[in-house]
Amino acid sequence: MTERGRDLSGVFAPERIAVVGATEREGSVGRAVTANLLADFEGEVVPVNPGRDSVLGVRCVASVADADADLAVIAVPSSAVADVLEETGEAGVRDVVVLTAGFGETGSTGATRERELREIAAAYGMNLVGPNSLGVMSSPVGLNATFGPDALPPGSISFMSQSGAFVTAVVDWASEAGLGFNDVVSLGNKAVLDETDFLREWGGDPETDVIVGYLESISDGRAFVEVAREVTDDTPVVVVKSGRTDAGAQAASSHTGAIAGSDRAYETALAEAGVIRAGTVQDLFDAARAFASGQDIATDGVAVVTNAGGPGVMATDAVGDADRLSLASFTDDTIGTLGEALPDEANRYNPVDVVGDADVGRFEAALDATLSDPGVGAGVVIVAPTATLDFGALADAVVDLGAEHDVPVAVSLMGGPRLAEARETLRDAHVPTYFDPARAVSGLDTLAEHRAISGRERREPERFDVDRDRVRETLAAVREREDNQLGVEAMDVLDAYGIPTPVGEVVDDPADARELAERIGGPVVMKIVSPDIVHKSDIGGVKVGVEPGDVADAYEDLVARARNYQPDARLLGVQVQELIDVDAGVETIVGSHRDPQFGPLVLFGLGGIFVEVLEDATFRLAPVAAADAREMTGEIDAAPLLRGARGRDPVDLDAVVDAIGRLSQLVADFPAIVELDVNPLVATPEGVQAVDLRLTVNPEELP
Amino acid sequence: MTERGRDLSGVFAPERIAVVGATEREGSVGRAVTANLLADFEGEVVPVNPGRDSVLGVRCVASVADADADLAVIAVPSSAVADVLEETGEAGVRDVVVLTAGFGETGSTGATRERELREIAAAYGMNLVGPNSLGVMSSPVGLNATFGPDALPPGSISFMSQSGAFVTAVVDWASEAGLGFNDVVSLGNKAVLDETDFLREWGGDPETDVIVGYLESISDGRAFVEVAREVTDDTPVVVVKSGRTDAGAQAASSHTGAIAGSDRAYETALAEAGVIRAGTVQDLFDAARAFASGQDIATDGVAVVTNAGGPGVMATDAVGDADRLSLASFTDDTIGTLGEALPDEANRYNPVDVVGDADVGRFEAALDATLSDPGVGAGVVIVAPTATLDFGALADAVVDLGAEHDVPVAVSLMGGPRLAEARETLRDAHVPTYFDPARAVSGLDTLAEHRAISGRERREPERFDVDRDRVRETLAAVREREDNQLGVEAMDVLDAYGIPTPVGEVVDDPADARELAERIGGPVVMKIVSPDIVHKSDIGGVKVGVEPGDVADAYEDLVARARNYQPDARLLGVQVQELIDVDAGVETIVGSHRDPQFGPLVLFGLGGIFVEVLEDATFRLAPVAAADAREMTGEIDAAPLLRGARGRDPVDLDAVVDAIGRLSQLVADFPAIVELDVNPLVATPEGVQAVDLRLTVNPEELP
Repeated sequence: MTERGRDLSGVFAPERIAVVGATEREGSVGRAVTANLLADFEGEVVPVNPGRDSVLGVRCVASVADADADLAVIAVPSSAVADVLEETGEAGVRDVVVLTAGFGETGSTGATRERELREIAAAYGMNLVGPNSLGVMSSPVGLNATFGPDALPPGSISFMSQSGAFVTAVVDWASEAGLGFNDVVSLGNKAVLDETDFLREWGGDPETDVIVGYLESISDGRAFVEVAREVTDDTPVVVVKSGRTDAGAQAASSHTGAIAGSDRAYETALAEAGVIRAGTVQDLFDAARAFASGQDIATDGVAVVTNAGGPGVMATDAVGDADRLSLASFTDDTIGTLGEALPDEANRYNPVDVVGDADVGRFEAALDATLSDPGVGAGVVIVAPTATLDFGALADAVVDLGAEHDVPVAVSLMGGPRLAEARETLRDAHVPTYFDPARAVSGLDTLAEHRAISGRERREPERFDVDRDRVRETLAAVREREDNQLGVEAMDVLDAYGIPTPVGEVVDDPADARELAERIGGPVVMKIVSPDIVHKSDIGGVKVGVEPGDVADAYEDLVARARNYQPDARLLGVQVQELIDVDAGVETIVGSHRDPQFGPLVLFGLGGIFVEVLEDATFRLAPVAAADAREMTGEIDAAPLLRGARGRDPVDLDAVVDAIGRLSQLVADFPAIVELDVNPLVATPEGVQAVDLRLTVNPEELP
Repeated sequence: MTERGRDLSGVFAPERIAVVGATEREGSVGRAVTANLLADFEGEVVPVNPGRDSVLGVRCVASVADADADLAVIAVPSSAVADVLEETGEAGVRDVVVLTAGFGETGSTGATRERELREIAAAYGMNLVGPNSLGVMSSPVGLNATFGPDALPPGSISFMSQSGAFVTAVVDWASEAGLGFNDVVSLGNKAVLDETDFLREWGGDPETDVIVGYLESISDGRAFVEVAREVTDDTPVVVVKSGRTDAGAQAASSHTGAIAGSDRAYETALAEAGVIRAGTVQDLFDAARAFASGQDIATDGVAVVTNAGGPGVMATDAVGDADRLSLASFTDDTIGTLGEALPDEANRYNPVDVVGDADVGRFEAALDATLSDPGVGAGVVIVAPTATLDFGALADAVVDLGAEHDVPVAVSLMGGPRLAEARETLRDAHVPTYFDPARAVSGLDTLAEHRAISGRERREPERFDVDRDRVRETLAAVREREDNQLGVEAMDVLDAYGIPTPVGEVVDDPADARELAERIGGPVVMKIVSPDIVHKSDIGGVKVGVEPGDVADAYEDLVARARNYQPDARLLGVQVQELIDVDAGVETIVGSHRDPQFGPLVLFGLGGIFVEVLEDATFRLAPVAAADAREMTGEIDAAPLLRGARGRDPVDLDAVVDAIGRLSQLVADFPAIVELDVNPLVATPEGVQAVDLRLTVNPEELP
């Protein structure tokens, strides 16, 4: 486990760098990194090589101990790294980048070596990047401590990548793509420093407008979520988490040896952490470009100003597709101003079409009027090449107006060479440009997404008063069984956590069954209880609406059916339960699944037979705060059924929310609960009833 | 209505072009188009201007009659266009492009003028592009009959656009984006020639590898679908149809005055036509780029060959997201060959990671082996910049191997300047390149989509033997009513078309009700029948499971409830119907909605109360062939319920398919049926029963 709360400023802004393994051998990592460091770094570079006097014209020292450095870059063979690291620690160097490969990614010998590095780093309290890292870069001090790309174009994006090649690719592409960076790190094998450390570092960095990441795994899921929640209150974080699909996940694990958590867990965790997840590289950097303007979006209304009708329609379609944005409705004032500024054939409503013969002045007037409108939080400007327009002057006007109104503007430059100058002007001013109007809109949509994230309230899960001892006892029952599954016989765990269950018990005698039914006082449901019979209804093992007088016969019949189905099935008895009128409510499901990276996830969805078929469900990390549980009830497609569709009374949502919260506390309190299904949880206008249960226990985690 | 089956070769390959309205006035359309024509056109250009001797150095004639042209380009003021067109027709010129604006797009005067043009064109049998068109372009003959963009980069994409500005934008962007075109047309107002005409023209054109369109409306929906079905058997067609969202649709109609059909109808019609719909401009041209290689994909398996692990994972994710593609599983032979060609640390399974130190030879060997694999239909090559690789040589190798194996290859060039030369080599050879691996994959995915489209069988809807007269009589009932809604009293129309309905009738007397119930012989369902009471169950107007002995009392009670709810409601009686056990089957819905552009759409989905909440439904144009109806039953999310989820027997799918087909014939036969809901159509293992009906009739269309 990584020690949290490190100061990583020395990694990105060192004064004196020791390059251990510096050499002049062509094609070597040691030469490449030395050359890259010597190119632009503002501080001093000290090659360390006992066999040479100088490297690339710079005087060498024999050992890192002689370098008096505050950052060490290590590029020696893998078998020598541990010794060098030890020396580095002894020399009092706190920050280290290990470029050398041949560790955890190569198998068990490498993994042992990597553990050794971790121990040495821990002993000396060192911040270690890598091993198997391409290195680190930082534009403010001209730092290029990598063996890959050329100099970093300056900017306000800070970028971490679990793929070194991807760093080289992005930095090479950056100037062409109009991207500028502050810090860049290739995470390598994350033996010590991982994504969470850099997240925290950059979250507190005033030079970073947006944190961008390419991740294949997250080392410590809960820590990441906790830190990201804090950071994303201010700084937007956008990541591609690859290995999304089954096929992708296989490739990821064979690539890095990291155990990828299931994608559903990542999806849930990233959302709760306030991290914006990009599906593709393009989406990642489209978002980065939008954030790099440093401007915030004040409301979700977008104004579109275009000199071409068709592309205006495309932008409007894209606004319709956006998660957050909507097409702003202008005030009468705005419409009046536009009316005066534009010719008759122009459209003064949104999207504003200034028409093909517009000059810069007309564009400017339209943009000024719309960006002044209180309902407008962002502008999309669409420019198609025409004979009448001075594109350079238009670009200047867009830059000035965006700054003057402090409203983020994205520009769709629908052309090639004719608009090249405008593109350059806009990019220099950090105004994002795209060809496709849809991409301009989706860039702005991520600004709106971040606004929602940073404005969210801190939600603390409630601590319910529960009976943990009863749960402990019930779960312990698996110790005496051959499997680790519990069914209705464990309904008690729900009751102990205050989740309503129908009156009922498991009995092992027809007379007891009848007595219980009479106590319940009406028709009952009877179910065979056996760990060997999973699908009870398929063998006729469930009887609904049995009158007390018939209960004893029904008992015998159920047992006979079970015996007939499987003579050696272990029978725990028959559950006799109060009859819940399912038709009077909605069958929902509340469940939990324990993820290796992020711990228990809680599911809420449409229950009954629809669970598997429609998969209409939503997830949170446990424990779940009441406000989140309430959101969950609104997120499923079937939510209108809960709110009372077609003239039915709405169900008691407070009771649903309460049940989700209590169940989430149950799975958070008991790591032994690996899987849990309450299906159905019948929700009616009067409350909820947990009618059936399935539960998987990990005996090794039993308290 | 456009006359179909025209020969448009003269529009794109004329020999002598008259430019009516040619002038030297700066900034005029007449000057711009003359200059553009004079630049590169292989044939002759004849300016027509009675007031001048020459235009831009070329001798003028006074009238189009003197020009002896086979194509006339008209750029005179809108008030003069009709006269010029008349002259043009008299002069025997068959093909005409009208650039002049000020017609249908400007209001009623313009619309009248446009009708006039249509009449003149019809009288002379002229092919007329426009009015309000930017013009036409064709690269084989150097034709640029537009007043917009510069010369067209040659290639095999043919492109139609309902936005002139978008043509200018795309052509300016084309060389930078690596796009080459054969023909381009700006459709303008589509007074005569529309999208269907150009679709047919290019469908038969050997120089066109892919047809690309930007459309805001489709003029004649059914004709478009019919022609597109033919064309897409060979030639891929990809369109952006804008105005997708409600907001977008509003902008579209205010822009062109075209009545946009609902998007659902477009979605359905384009799918049935075999047209691939792109959501954005980028998707449109990504697809175009993939098709422009002219290669077909033989199977859906993709091989990924990469020199960087992370981007390989991204590509794998994208293959997982793709609609059609899958990651190919290599044969043992392929894996063996890869094993010999690659070092130990490389991954010889898919995605093939040739590792960062790969040279061209290693890349080449891996690509050769994978493209030889019988399970591989397409290749994705990912190139990240490294020190060891000669990118130009690699590009040559990729071009050669793709051609040699005749397998389409898309390349993700993950870099900027370092890969510029490789990018140029690949584009010159029509090998599509992208930065983002996901875009490379999605380009190939559209090839697979086209393969599925071109391989589909021709499906003819069955003609069922039905009783049209009974339907005619039943529908005529609305003539005597104040509204145009029919309910269960019209169940007869279903019976007449052979769709099973429960035994039942509408009676208006308690004794008749009882007699009917006795005839049915068991518990019945009773419903109040009144055009004024839409939600019968909300007022207690439905009774389920009434025994024959109780039917008379129930009748009185239902009538009392209706009277109590609305004293002046028109009561048509009470429907007494055989009780169908809904729980024994699945409640589905079959319905229809008549679209102004495409005629009746047929819906199939999950019925009952879930219809509105889950919207789990799929659509086809009527009439629906049996094979399509069967596909519909598999397309809804709830399809597993029909196939017998959780140990239940599957429903009688043949009966569902039959009901869809018969209902589709009903709405195709009767244009008077505007809306129709059969909900629920209860599907059981024994068959289907149409339990309830709602039907809206347009009395003006009654036969």
